[in-house]
Amino acid sequence: MTDFIPTPTVAAPDIVRCAYVELIVTDLSKSREFYVNVLGLHVTQEDERTIYLRSLEEFIHHNLVLREGPIAAVAALAYRVRSPAEVDAAEVYYKLLGCRTERRENGFVTGIGDAVRVEDPLGFPYEFFYETEHVERLTQRYDLYCPGELVRLDHFNQVTPDVPKGRKYLEDLGFRVSEDIKDSDGVTYAAWLHRKQTVHDTALTGGDGPRMHHMAFATHEKHNIIQICDKMGALRISDRIERGPGRHGVSNAFYLYILDPDDHRVEIYTQDYYTGDPDNPTITWDVHDNQRRDWWGNPVVPSWYTEASLVLDLDGNPQPVVERTQASEMMVTVGADGFSYTRAQGDAINGEPAEEIGFKMGNQL
Amino acid sequence: MTDFIPTPTVAAPDIVRCAYVELIVTDLSKSREFYVNVLGLHVTQEDERTIYLRSLEEFIHHNLVLREGPIAAVAALAYRVRSPAEVDAAEVYYKLLGCRTERRENGFVTGIGDAVRVEDPLGFPYEFFYETEHVERLTQRYDLYCPGELVRLDHFNQVTPDVPKGRKYLEDLGFRVSEDIKDSDGVTYAAWLHRKQTVHDTALTGGDGPRMHHMAFATHEKHNIIQICDKMGALRISDRIERGPGRHGVSNAFYLYILDPDDHRVEIYTQDYYTGDPDNPTITWDVHDNQRRDWWGNPVVPSWYTEASLVLDLDGNPQPVVERTQASEMMVTVGADGFSYTRAQGDAINGEPAEEIGFKMGNQL
Amino acid sequence: MTDFIPTPTVAAPDIVRCAYVELIVTDLSKSREFYVNVLGLHVTQEDERTIYLRSLEEFIHHNLVLREGPIAAVAALAYRVRSPAEVDAAEVYYKLLGCRTERRENGFVTGIGDAVRVEDPLGFPYEFFYETEHVERLTQRYDLYCPGELVRLDHFNQVTPDVPKGRKYLEDLGFRVSEDIKDSDGVTYAAWLHRKQTVHDTALTGGDGPRMHHMAFATHEKHNIIQICDKMGALRISDRIERGPGRHGVSNAFYLYILDPDDHRVEIYTQDYYTGDPDNPTITWDVHDNQRRDWWGNPVVPSWYTEASLVLDLDGNPQPVVERTQASEMMVTVGADGFSYTRAQGDAINGEPAEEIGFKMGNQL
Amino acid sequence: MTDFIPTPTVAAPDIVRCAYVELIVTDLSKSREFYVNVLGLHVTQEDERTIYLRSLEEFIHHNLVLREGPIAAVAALAYRVRSPAEVDAAEVYYKLLGCRTERRENGFVTGIGDAVRVEDPLGFPYEFFYETEHVERLTQRYDLYCPGELVRLDHFNQVTPDVPKGRKYLEDLGFRVSEDIKDSDGVTYAAWLHRKQTVHDTALTGGDGPRMHHMAFATHEKHNIIQICDKMGALRISDRIERGPGRHGVSNAFYLYILDPDDHRVEIYTQDYYTGDPDNPTITWDVHDNQRRDWWGNPVVPSWYTEASLVLDLDGNPQPVVERTQASEMMVTVGADGFSYTRAQGDAINGEPAEEIGFKMGNQL
Repeated sequence: MTDFIPTPTVAAPDIVRCAYVELIVTDLSKSREFYVNVLGLHVTQEDERTIYLRSLEEFIHHNLVLREGPIAAVAALAYRVRSPAEVDAAEVYYKLLGCRTERRENGFVTGIGDAVRVEDPLGFPYEFFYETEHVERLTQRYDLYCPGELVRLDHFNQVTPDVPKGRKYLEDLGFRVSEDIKDSDGVTYAAWLHRKQTVHDTALTGGDGPRMHHMAFATHEKHNIIQICDKMGALRISDRIERGPGRHGVSNAFYLYILDPDDHRVEIYTQDYYTGDPDNPTITWDVHDNQRRDWWGNPVVPSWYTEASLVLDLDGNPQPVVERTQASEMMVTVGADGFSYTRAQGDAINGEPAEEIGFKMGNQL
Repeated sequence: MTDFIPTPTVAAPDIVRCAYVELIVTDLSKSREFYVNVLGLHVTQEDERTIYLRSLEEFIHHNLVLREGPIAAVAALAYRVRSPAEVDAAEVYYKLLGCRTERRENGFVTGIGDAVRVEDPLGFPYEFFYETEHVERLTQRYDLYCPGELVRLDHFNQVTPDVPKGRKYLEDLGFRVSEDIKDSDGVTYAAWLHRKQTVHDTALTGGDGPRMHHMAFATHEKHNIIQICDKMGALRISDRIERGPGRHGVSNAFYLYILDPDDHRVEIYTQDYYTGDPDNPTITWDVHDNQRRDWWGNPVVPSWYTEASLVLDLDGNPQPVVERTQASEMMVTVGADGFSYTRAQGDAINGEPAEEIGFKMGNQL
Repeated sequence: MTDFIPTPTVAAPDIVRCAYVELIVTDLSKSREFYVNVLGLHVTQEDERTIYLRSLEEFIHHNLVLREGPIAAVAALAYRVRSPAEVDAAEVYYKLLGCRTERRENGFVTGIGDAVRVEDPLGFPYEFFYETEHVERLTQRYDLYCPGELVRLDHFNQVTPDVPKGRKYLEDLGFRVSEDIKDSDGVTYAAWLHRKQTVHDTALTGGDGPRMHHMAFATHEKHNIIQICDKMGALRISDRIERGPGRHGVSNAFYLYILDPDDHRVEIYTQDYYTGDPDNPTITWDVHDNQRRDWWGNPVVPSWYTEASLVLDLDGNPQPVVERTQASEMMVTVGADGFSYTRAQGDAINGEPAEEIGFKMGNQL
Repeated sequence: MTDFIPTPTVAAPDIVRCAYVELIVTDLSKSREFYVNVLGLHVTQEDERTIYLRSLEEFIHHNLVLREGPIAAVAALAYRVRSPAEVDAAEVYYKLLGCRTERRENGFVTGIGDAVRVEDPLGFPYEFFYETEHVERLTQRYDLYCPGELVRLDHFNQVTPDVPKGRKYLEDLGFRVSEDIKDSDGVTYAAWLHRKQTVHDTALTGGDGPRMHHMAFATHEKHNIIQICDKMGALRISDRIERGPGRHGVSNAFYLYILDPDDHRVEIYTQDYYTGDPDNPTITWDVHDNQRRDWWGNPVVPSWYTEASLVLDLDGNPQPVVERTQASEMMVTVGADGFSYTRAQGDAINGEPAEEIGFKMGNQL
């Protein structure tokens, strides 16, 4: 892996937002059960091999494509750009980066027009498109509203070995960093980057990659997320609740991580904050801050650090996974080799000097 | 330990509900910070050594007395009875049980009149009273309402080595069992018992006792509980969040467990169900059901099983703690020696036979 | 009308709670659409002429019977009593009151056993029963939970011309008054009475009667009620939202009133308070207090005061409606002939003496 | 009034979002009581004549300036632009429009740097600035969070006689229309326009103007808004609740309108939807649709249509108010002269053809 991704000499495509994920699933009916019956996403269209799903407030054709295939993986992370011309811009931009690209005037999936897909410098299958079929926006179809209703696709999260390298590439592409996690040695463990006016359209999580860590859908309120847990309990699939619910330190959102039948991770997420000002303050968290990943100090389960979804190249083959060689967030923060603190040294609690306090040992056996 | 507590030949006192806890705390100002500034309980009265606190919707003098003393412990678990005569009935009842009793016409604490305290057959300091000073019920004082407002004292929870023995004693005392946890060998791990029309006024948790496992306050809604977590995060005392928030299997309530400065455990609890019918169905949970303690299958932290508050005898000395000799819920359900399941054997998931599935190993390191 | 209902010389039946309503509807399919598809009540059983419905947390056979008939009316307001013997007690009690009674060992409706129905002294068709078929309690069936889920039958509300007369009768029957509305001349406009430990099992509203003002179902949280409004908007039946949502002054509950296809009024209600103590304080509201019916001072729509459902005698014929001759709450509080105040005279606002302030004229044209 | 505002031949300033309102209040201590003690806005800075307030998640100096003066009015509606150069662009733009402008390098109020204020073509005092002091963003200060916490300034709402004229001017300025209200004769009654990715940064309401209809703050969830009502009830100022709470048809947001001590109207608002895509669908509502202003069909109080705040010219004198000569939304939709419908003609309800159904007469006396 090269250490540095050059900045192309042309303007980056004007990206509006993260728009949809194309997911390869190994058993379409099981995945349908999960995304439609359990999570309540709305079917725009479906056939024997493919289901096109959207969230309540979406007006483009879909936010999620489920396509049956032999290996569970991510076929595309698709961004919407501001105009048809920006698809051209994307194609030029990635060619200059030396990336393999593929352009299809009629789109790669139903409901999407002219689009370009690329194998990006980090190894991810990115798509850029503008043209899309408008469908009924279900915003006020409260007759269709389920208690855990998903209202928007919020973001992607990508695992990559070298976060600063990826961050520089995405900043060149026009993303801005809202938050990140670092240590005092200058290691970056994760970064959150946005185009739309939320905390992120995508995030980079340091780890073996390229892999997709998760995709996230937003709900209106916190009780909607709690209800998803309650329903998964009722369906006796609580073992598919991986982590949460909780309050993120980073992003301040209320969150939940669940696993689909292929172990693709889905986050349910609500109430981050506005980031649209040009000087929106970037927040840097100390990797040892025990509240960075969960504001309540609840532990991150190891699988959340280690497991992720394969991504495909443009031929549909899984990209090889490259090991992260920098420090691992899990290892530096948990257990015998790592440490975390609830209060920073020097924080006064009840008028007394604070000592450093580690993570909640009570949560471990 | 005797195996059997006899049934007195007189009528049990007519208990209305759990009413207040008298708690010995080692640093009154730290405890005040926790119960008043963090949790928002309302001060009815206070002096240098004692604080009388009540929840928003309470009209009796207090639900919690904090008294400074040398050893953190519980001085009394107090029940309100239906009339002054029932205090007499309680005194007679416990004398017949052979228990030490103490009667004080002017009460043991400010705001409470004629009362009897007993060292009950399980070793707990129970109080029974009817007379109490009425104070302003703050139900509609929304100007005083904090985001994590505690509106009622909901229940006590007591640790005792022999749950069936304790259950028989409490049923004689007029409590009815709403739910319990057992195994197929007939071991009882816990039982929930009520007088008022909720799931419990007290519960028995199998373990070394007599100790108080926790006391619980109710909020109006789930978001109130989430806010308490958020606030504890903001105050950088998230290490005092011991377990949760989550949804109980038993009781169906949304819950949180936090620790006060003396490690007295407080549960915040909302939305259990009506139990007032005489034939209210009792629910028995299998100890191996992974959703019994948390409907979402999130693990119970070990400290929650092992730690509890000492209780005092009528002289103010801690009661000796007797070890539980029956099977431990923690040991039979977690890790190498125990097991749990998410789905009962034979449950069909997605039309396929279910295998037994253990607890979430991902949560352990 | 006689002014006084004598107190029988036998013990009143021990009533547990309000349990179900038998409603006559003129078009069963329209009513099914409303109660099942819009409100999400659960069907226990149904045939061509009758539907038996229950709320989520109910374990008796039903809370609502819809029976098709020629005239929209209420056939029974049914209470559960504590034991089979209490049905006998009810029969004796009402015979001593000189009321017409009818006893049926196999019950009047499916799912209910031995019961007595009476034409009570106020002209209402009351039923008392103990025996009932237990059905699945759906408390944790979150897979069936709809966003506006109704979890319990909470109370009845009855219109009667002479509230003090009715109150005395219900107090004799063992009900206790939690709140009432009066004026300085001693006129009582309404009273709330309970057996279970909530604000009411039934209420008396002064007006032309006997008629049923409404029946009320409880939700878990306020957002569930808002969702019912949102869904009725989506279904374009917002004209069936009669009043609210709002916060009651009386009872402190968050509320909504909607109308079924026959104009039977249904309240959706959440978060009143515990009333189980023997000395639970009774709250008396001034009829001129603008926040008594809506804590936010929003006006009560006139139809809410004037419209109500007919009730049937034991032959199935509508009871004649007797006019209220005492002052009308609507007339004394609204418009040119009446007045209301937001602040009581003498209340200081911002340190300045308060003037009397009338209802919100802005709400009128 | 000219009928047409020409399009300047220079680029419009790049507006980021609505940022703050400068409000003239006649009694600063009463206004402080309202905005700080009742609504919980956070004081950035204050002196004897001026208070600078911000919402929880704000990082610029303020969202609201309260300045004591002789006449209650609006001194400025201030937008943040993307860079310092855009302040120049704004100045040029309005000079070309023939508007009076005033530039102050040190800003018009504390905490804001170089800014230009204009008397815009509709008569409103608009300000454009980029430079501002960053202050602590209180997003995770849950220890300061009140139950009705206001988290963002969401939008302004301006009353102007000729909505299409104003809309054309704002579209030239770079705003995009998300929703509007029209009738079949082509009259426009109101329009919602945005720069940030929400339904609006400002709206135009047809009426006598220039006046400010309201400013709006966002909460996280619906219960936060309900709590504001509850608190105003507790403070016995429910007569300052003008309209709501309710669900808007337009914008889909949950809303409340309250009045400050000078009758400046404040909206509390939550959960509209994402509008950031370039082809975000514009929604046009029929003025006769009874659910356009309140999705539940609750009536709009007349004062909401008729009352608004004066705005000042750059000398601090109130702008004269020009009467609207086009049809009035209030008159065409309410009462004897107007009409509304709940269901559009031809909508099938329960499988039967729908008739037109008017507004809820029950709400009127």
